[in-house]
Amino acid sequence: MTDEPPGGFLTLGDLEAAGAAKSARDVWEFVQGGAGAETTLRGNRDAFYRQTLRPRVLTGVDRIDLRTTILGTPVAAPFFVAPTAYQGLLCADGELATARAAGAAGLLAVYSTLSTRSLEEVAAAAPDGLRWFQLYLQPEAGVARRLVERAERAGYRALVLTVDMPLLANRDRQLRSGLAVDTPAPIGNGADVHSPPRALTADGGRFLLRVDTAATWEVVDRLREWTRLPIVVKGVLTGEDARRAVDHGASAVIVSNHGGRQLDGAPATLDVLPEVVEAVGRDAEVYLDGGVRRGSDVLMALALGARAVGIGRPVLWALAAGGEAGVARLLSLLEVDVATVMALTGRTTVPAIDRALLGAPRW
Amino acid sequence: MTDEPPGGFLTLGDLEAAGAAKSARDVWEFVQGGAGAETTLRGNRDAFYRQTLRPRVLTGVDRIDLRTTILGTPVAAPFFVAPTAYQGLLCADGELATARAAGAAGLLAVYSTLSTRSLEEVAAAAPDGLRWFQLYLQPEAGVARRLVERAERAGYRALVLTVDMPLLANRDRQLRSGLAVDTPAPIGNGADVHSPPRALTADGGRFLLRVDTAATWEVVDRLREWTRLPIVVKGVLTGEDARRAVDHGASAVIVSNHGGRQLDGAPATLDVLPEVVEAVGRDAEVYLDGGVRRGSDVLMALALGARAVGIGRPVLWALAAGGEAGVARLLSLLEVDVATVMALTGRTTVPAIDRALLGAPRW
Amino acid sequence: MTDEPPGGFLTLGDLEAAGAAKSARDVWEFVQGGAGAETTLRGNRDAFYRQTLRPRVLTGVDRIDLRTTILGTPVAAPFFVAPTAYQGLLCADGELATARAAGAAGLLAVYSTLSTRSLEEVAAAAPDGLRWFQLYLQPEAGVARRLVERAERAGYRALVLTVDMPLLANRDRQLRSGLAVDTPAPIGNGADVHSPPRALTADGGRFLLRVDTAATWEVVDRLREWTRLPIVVKGVLTGEDARRAVDHGASAVIVSNHGGRQLDGAPATLDVLPEVVEAVGRDAEVYLDGGVRRGSDVLMALALGARAVGIGRPVLWALAAGGEAGVARLLSLLEVDVATVMALTGRTTVPAIDRALLGAPRW
Amino acid sequence: MTDEPPGGFLTLGDLEAAGAAKSARDVWEFVQGGAGAETTLRGNRDAFYRQTLRPRVLTGVDRIDLRTTILGTPVAAPFFVAPTAYQGLLCADGELATARAAGAAGLLAVYSTLSTRSLEEVAAAAPDGLRWFQLYLQPEAGVARRLVERAERAGYRALVLTVDMPLLANRDRQLRSGLAVDTPAPIGNGADVHSPPRALTADGGRFLLRVDTAATWEVVDRLREWTRLPIVVKGVLTGEDARRAVDHGASAVIVSNHGGRQLDGAPATLDVLPEVVEAVGRDAEVYLDGGVRRGSDVLMALALGARAVGIGRPVLWALAAGGEAGVARLLSLLEVDVATVMALTGRTTVPAIDRALLGAPRW
Repeated sequence: MTDEPPGGFLTLGDLEAAGAAKSARDVWEFVQGGAGAETTLRGNRDAFYRQTLRPRVLTGVDRIDLRTTILGTPVAAPFFVAPTAYQGLLCADGELATARAAGAAGLLAVYSTLSTRSLEEVAAAAPDGLRWFQLYLQPEAGVARRLVERAERAGYRALVLTVDMPLLANRDRQLRSGLAVDTPAPIGNGADVHSPPRALTADGGRFLLRVDTAATWEVVDRLREWTRLPIVVKGVLTGEDARRAVDHGASAVIVSNHGGRQLDGAPATLDVLPEVVEAVGRDAEVYLDGGVRRGSDVLMALALGARAVGIGRPVLWALAAGGEAGVARLLSLLEVDVATVMALTGRTTVPAIDRALLGAPRW
Repeated sequence: MTDEPPGGFLTLGDLEAAGAAKSARDVWEFVQGGAGAETTLRGNRDAFYRQTLRPRVLTGVDRIDLRTTILGTPVAAPFFVAPTAYQGLLCADGELATARAAGAAGLLAVYSTLSTRSLEEVAAAAPDGLRWFQLYLQPEAGVARRLVERAERAGYRALVLTVDMPLLANRDRQLRSGLAVDTPAPIGNGADVHSPPRALTADGGRFLLRVDTAATWEVVDRLREWTRLPIVVKGVLTGEDARRAVDHGASAVIVSNHGGRQLDGAPATLDVLPEVVEAVGRDAEVYLDGGVRRGSDVLMALALGARAVGIGRPVLWALAAGGEAGVARLLSLLEVDVATVMALTGRTTVPAIDRALLGAPRW
Repeated sequence: MTDEPPGGFLTLGDLEAAGAAKSARDVWEFVQGGAGAETTLRGNRDAFYRQTLRPRVLTGVDRIDLRTTILGTPVAAPFFVAPTAYQGLLCADGELATARAAGAAGLLAVYSTLSTRSLEEVAAAAPDGLRWFQLYLQPEAGVARRLVERAERAGYRALVLTVDMPLLANRDRQLRSGLAVDTPAPIGNGADVHSPPRALTADGGRFLLRVDTAATWEVVDRLREWTRLPIVVKGVLTGEDARRAVDHGASAVIVSNHGGRQLDGAPATLDVLPEVVEAVGRDAEVYLDGGVRRGSDVLMALALGARAVGIGRPVLWALAAGGEAGVARLLSLLEVDVATVMALTGRTTVPAIDRALLGAPRW
Repeated sequence: MTDEPPGGFLTLGDLEAAGAAKSARDVWEFVQGGAGAETTLRGNRDAFYRQTLRPRVLTGVDRIDLRTTILGTPVAAPFFVAPTAYQGLLCADGELATARAAGAAGLLAVYSTLSTRSLEEVAAAAPDGLRWFQLYLQPEAGVARRLVERAERAGYRALVLTVDMPLLANRDRQLRSGLAVDTPAPIGNGADVHSPPRALTADGGRFLLRVDTAATWEVVDRLREWTRLPIVVKGVLTGEDARRAVDHGASAVIVSNHGGRQLDGAPATLDVLPEVVEAVGRDAEVYLDGGVRRGSDVLMALALGARAVGIGRPVLWALAAGGEAGVARLLSLLEVDVATVMALTGRTTVPAIDRALLGAPRW
């Protein structure tokens, strides 16, 4: 691990720099890029910069407890590994390295339909780890159903249905990088599993365009027929859709704009989180991903009502920087950072992170 | 087409870069520059960055229909080729290339009084294409009238009267580029046709200045005597003027600041669009141009009440990058981008693009 | 004039670039610099960028009349040469060049107490030009009184009392440039005339500091005893002080922060103009200086209630770039720019520039 | 002092540049850096840029009196030397140089628990200087108590209890610099004195983290049993905590975010000052530190209700640039700057600096 700086990886910035140094350029552009002009990609970070934290002092912070539950299952900290595709592009072990590190840390990890390793291999790599399976709908319903059944059998504890990717968005940076856009690496879950379609195809008239998926909210009902696993709807940015997800039986929603990789022009996730939290009320859990890089980001999202937050690109940085050890280091750095910010804001438990923690926005 | 990147033009940015590489510097400054400090030029883009889109998910987006009508005529998509002058500076075929590409795409194109090719040549290049004629008033009314009559005869379906150019503004970048300011290329519509005047001339006292055109709203009435073509008033930025245009019989108005090339200090077109839409009500159609570069921009304008949007500079980029094929590629990229954003926001038809699509602005 | 670009000076930017090229570095830092962190210097420009203009079209702009009156005297345009010190640093003729150019243009020019040429020489250079005398209070009242009496005799038509300079501010850039701060060039109005003091001096206790001037509003009363010339109070940024100036008999006030050269942290002049205009009502004229560089700036200030605006640094750029011819070119460029913006906004006379011209600010 | 520019140190910028040139890189990163992404570090400065000052003119500013009292003791100006650790890293004399310069200037100086010189040496260096002792709580209460007793004996006039550092925050820049993080230089106050802990350590379960200090508001009560010195609580950013400090007997609070070195995400001190001032009312004095670099900053904080402001990093710049002479120069430059801004805003005494001095914020 020659790119590790003296003293080891001390910050997420160290992991990012080492990951960039070790990765092929086209892979790195795939990891870092977003859709269109990357307005939404930047917006996710800006939303965290905009918020301020009102620290309370002398509250007695000798014991900081990061533990919480997610859908009732205890986890070590209020953040989890968000699903990201093709982790094998970053290091040979791919999702197996992630699974071992997350499992050892006692953290939830979510694995993509588009993993380079099969969902059974991932389960075997960390049998005791808490894992969820992220599902992309498939052109053939049978393929999707078999994925769901395999995940349930392999001990995945929830299904995360991604709803913001009826087709692959225009990702200018990735297009220019030269990496194959549709399937840049083999999909470990089987040859019949597909990535969401990239291209719109003409059908009939020139301007009548067609995508392969016709998914509506009924797919959630169908999923509930296929499995007794709780269903989490990922990629919701409005109160209306969050409410609808709950009404169709979702146990949780993830406020996500796919890390700025799908709809460029979508709002920052932190900015719409309150609307979703209010719409959902106590009927489901709400998570958030997109731009979470610091302990202070985690606290801001929790203060606005998220139960936990997902970490996406930094896991890929860590995989590239150091494989399983890199991810372990990342998760440990984040835990310490969350605990530090809790101590500095005078919160010793996760439930104590309330809206009063937030001050006036900077602008 | 040696400047085409491997894999072809994948984004508008590719077309812009190739266009810059192939164009003489003074021509490129003419294309890209704006008036004064280019505050308005930048402002047009900033207004799109400021808006956010609220995507709805699982609405069933297997068929995306971009078709709409403009003044009752069906078009393939809710955008059109905005009028730009002197297209022959960018490629030898000039407006003929544009006409062929737009015609093949089933899109409306508007041609400038200051085309390098005659309006009859343009019509012959794409006889079935939907075309409108943009009119600059002329020092001699007879010259303008003959242009109108020729356009009607040549199958142009509407007259677009530009009202924001009683004289040519101070375009600092163009002035410094060395390109002839008044008439940088021959005007194809005849030797008696003139560009709007550049210079103010002293008349009597030193500080009593004179421009050649004394146009008032009566010119719209006069146009209606000359022709039965519908009249579109281009260059309106206030509700008052939009209303006045309609009261003088205009069938539509174009919210435009001439791409930031005329009044530096004018507001972004997207910012004033709602005021114009409200003033006009159902009495006329409202279009917008200025800074439209992405499918998301198109949807934002439509969500705020525009029926269609005009594309200006990108057509010039595409002409320089690849002539007719470049423009065809541009129009296709834009169509796919609009359709993609429609799919990602859960809108399958143009009428479904409503104000609920817009979220809280970023700042 | 080898630094003149081909085609001559086409924009104020050309004059600035040529002025920089021809000037010694320390002089140029003196011209361009402001106080402290130059927050106020930048703020003056930002305030103009923030405003937008609502252009009205088809109003008939064949004759644009820039003429107005200032304190009842006709001038060719609603802008004037603001007082700036030590013009001889920029070109050998100094204020004489300015006087000739402004006189020929029919514009008001204000000359500083700290001119490098005597006020009588300046008057002789353009006997028919409209000129005002800017007064800095002097340690000895007799010196100030003699300046006032000389100005009245030499045909100056108003006294401009600067009130924002009880002492010279900390101008970091100038301090570092090496130019003598107190009196960088000889003062043409006599060896007994002084610049405002630079240094605070200890007096008694260490922290009891002393400046040489104890001026209060009574100085305005005293001035009115010395002369029958109208008095203009320059350097007012609040409604309260503007009102007070009028109550002490001032005929006009100039909203000015000394071009960002005195109190860093002072607001942009355009931002406080409405407050001053409202406080003064119809009892006096209000002018503005600070950052005016474009015709659109002039219209924005007039729309907010200024009767005219002062041009400061650009005159120094023009002097350095081309002496009298440079200043003549500057004034002509500005006139054409004002007339152009009037035409583009549909205003043909100065009184027609009203508040309805302003749209929603950009931020 | 070869890095002194010709003419000496004319601005704080000169001192900063010379300090940087003379310091080892790791030390300089320690001085300049902040926590995390340095959002709060930048925010402190931005808050001053955002405010504007409304200058009043012709108020008679011949005598400017900077003197005020702090907890009843007269001082030469309304600013003081804020406590900063390890001044011996910047120059050999360390805190002794600071003490001599501050004492000679008649200004309050606060010395850190983590001084490189002992508190008795510091007292001896400037016996007549007004000095306060900053206290970090210690793992063993006896150690803290002995520090308090020594400080009282050595003539320190108040105890400043820092409450925003239960542990050392993640300071990315410092971590990367290579400087020892916990104790980069020997602590002069004794081998049993400790810096706040850096690392969180696991205790029991993996995610149950532990810090060494369990301080609650009772520590203020305990301090009051140990000493009769007035107690100042430093590091408060909310009205609630400020009120609580006063209710526990604090004589004053310092609104501070530790110069952006602790909780990244904390608001700018100037932004929360009004909330603290309102909560405290007349029951205690309120000071502020964080980003104060200019006389205008001092006036802005005083206008918002601070009685005085602390100067942190610039003292370190000055120590590195010129030792005692450097600090003396710094304090003198600041005094002159405060006096200048008072003159330019028409305020001749500290009590005259009221809220009416502040205009509309820039954004």
